[in-house]
Amino acid sequence: MSLLVVGSVAFDSVRGPRGAVERMLGGSATYFAIAASYFTEVRLVGVVGDDFGEEHHSVLINRGICTKGLERVPGKTFFWSGEYSTDMNDRQTLDVQLNVFATFEPKLSSQYRQSPYLFLGNIDPELQHSVAAQMESPLLIAGDTMNFWIEGKRKELHQTLKRIHVLIVNDQEARLLSGEFNLIKAGRAIQAMGPETVVIKRGDNGVTMLQDDDIFSFPALPLDEVFDPTGAGDSFAGGFMGYLTSRGLANGGVDRKAFRRAAIYGSVMGSFAVEKFGVDRLLHLTREEIDERLNRFRLLTHFE
Amino acid sequence: MSLLVVGSVAFDSVRGPRGAVERMLGGSATYFAIAASYFTEVRLVGVVGDDFGEEHHSVLINRGICTKGLERVPGKTFFWSGEYSTDMNDRQTLDVQLNVFATFEPKLSSQYRQSPYLFLGNIDPELQHSVAAQMESPLLIAGDTMNFWIEGKRKELHQTLKRIHVLIVNDQEARLLSGEFNLIKAGRAIQAMGPETVVIKRGDNGVTMLQDDDIFSFPALPLDEVFDPTGAGDSFAGGFMGYLTSRGLANGGVDRKAFRRAAIYGSVMGSFAVEKFGVDRLLHLTREEIDERLNRFRLLTHFE
Repeated sequence: MSLLVVGSVAFDSVRGPRGAVERMLGGSATYFAIAASYFTEVRLVGVVGDDFGEEHHSVLINRGICTKGLERVPGKTFFWSGEYSTDMNDRQTLDVQLNVFATFEPKLSSQYRQSPYLFLGNIDPELQHSVAAQMESPLLIAGDTMNFWIEGKRKELHQTLKRIHVLIVNDQEARLLSGEFNLIKAGRAIQAMGPETVVIKRGDNGVTMLQDDDIFSFPALPLDEVFDPTGAGDSFAGGFMGYLTSRGLANGGVDRKAFRRAAIYGSVMGSFAVEKFGVDRLLHLTREEIDERLNRFRLLTHFE
Repeated sequence: MSLLVVGSVAFDSVRGPRGAVERMLGGSATYFAIAASYFTEVRLVGVVGDDFGEEHHSVLINRGICTKGLERVPGKTFFWSGEYSTDMNDRQTLDVQLNVFATFEPKLSSQYRQSPYLFLGNIDPELQHSVAAQMESPLLIAGDTMNFWIEGKRKELHQTLKRIHVLIVNDQEARLLSGEFNLIKAGRAIQAMGPETVVIKRGDNGVTMLQDDDIFSFPALPLDEVFDPTGAGDSFAGGFMGYLTSRGLANGGVDRKAFRRAAIYGSVMGSFAVEKFGVDRLLHLTREEIDERLNRFRLLTHFE
């Protein structure tokens, strides 16, 4: 089964307590696609500029990701720069240059429209909606959003939420979107906006997933060193959707066991992502390493 | 087996978003003893004043708690007053009157000295040390502390830490005591101070327990309404130690399964404690309700 992702492909400059890296390959679709590529066939829709070289393209190709949907247009690739606080729990955006991303209007090929699984990365809700509307008969649509869109395009976001089955957000976004501080109430309020499943990423406090009337919650894996939290959330989404796609599962409570396992796989991929700068740690994993880490989650949380 | 607890018995006035209650029965030893009483025989050592009436005493007696060690002296009982923030995650102390607690010097009877299990509630580390030194051959000693003692009596606290097997603290206390922000590093640093087992309570983010080189972590139970967080930590400790006492377990990694289950029972008792003001919710439970809630933790966290 194929998993389509629409989102940003970018260059990131990141500073933090563990060092600094300039203009490394990043973007929500990049992290998502690489993480998901360990589970299933991935199709990437995005846009890059002239400065996106073969060395960057080959990172995606080498992971077996289909880049037929990656447009190359004149101009510069989306650029983001940020700095993490000493405890890595806060980050400040230093610079954003949308560049070619500013006029991005994803148009899906007839082949891509038939993808059974879709992830709408963190882009303008109007674009998310347009992509969802182009799909022919998707089995499962998941999406992400952020404070910028919740505050600036709430009406459009609500239209998108009616079309998606799974919303994956962090705790702050869930609170802002719902107006509820209590995360369970926040999740229930978001479910009422459309998505049957709401996944709330709580950083180093773990993940809480609401699915219909079921709640699944688990802690973060204890990590000795976090090098770079950039892309952890997108890698989570990639692992989550990659696993569901590999299982051929449709929306909803049809298989809660699989959704729970998907949330753990998501956390596994997120935990790898932060261990090195950028996508480095995600590029050379084996399925055995991934499953070994899933087992670490089991050992961490199991009781009798 | 018997479980001895030394700590405060108090009157608390609490204000919060759910209302206000004046001079209700409280104190660390009170919450601990009531929570533990569902699992084992409990002996309480503390001090109260003339204002501690039969109606208060009978609350403890009705739970089968041995109060031979509860001294009654002229003066007033320890009084605490506090106010919770809207999200219940912060509290401000409005008033503290130590009263008879200011000159408390616990002396154990020969029967009490033979108790195999001891919990040192959050009192002056010098008193904790003096109580631990009076014990004849304890199987397991656990203790609590707080920022006030970590900052004001660090040297004395380190002496106490050398005598205890299990330290139960919250995340802020663990960070302050260890000087480490990362909670796993904080826990490891505290283990190096003495306790083989360090239990870190992370409020509505759950609990992380380090035991030798093992780590156990689990989320908090989602609760729709929290009425009063006062005593949740002491109720956790009561459930934790009450269960270990009922199993007759000694220190250390001899039975990790039981320590993990104890941490869940602790969280179960903490989750009940916050559902009403003061000790009200803890007074009329059944073992079936307790085990049903333990099963809710299993349903919340289980994956395959």
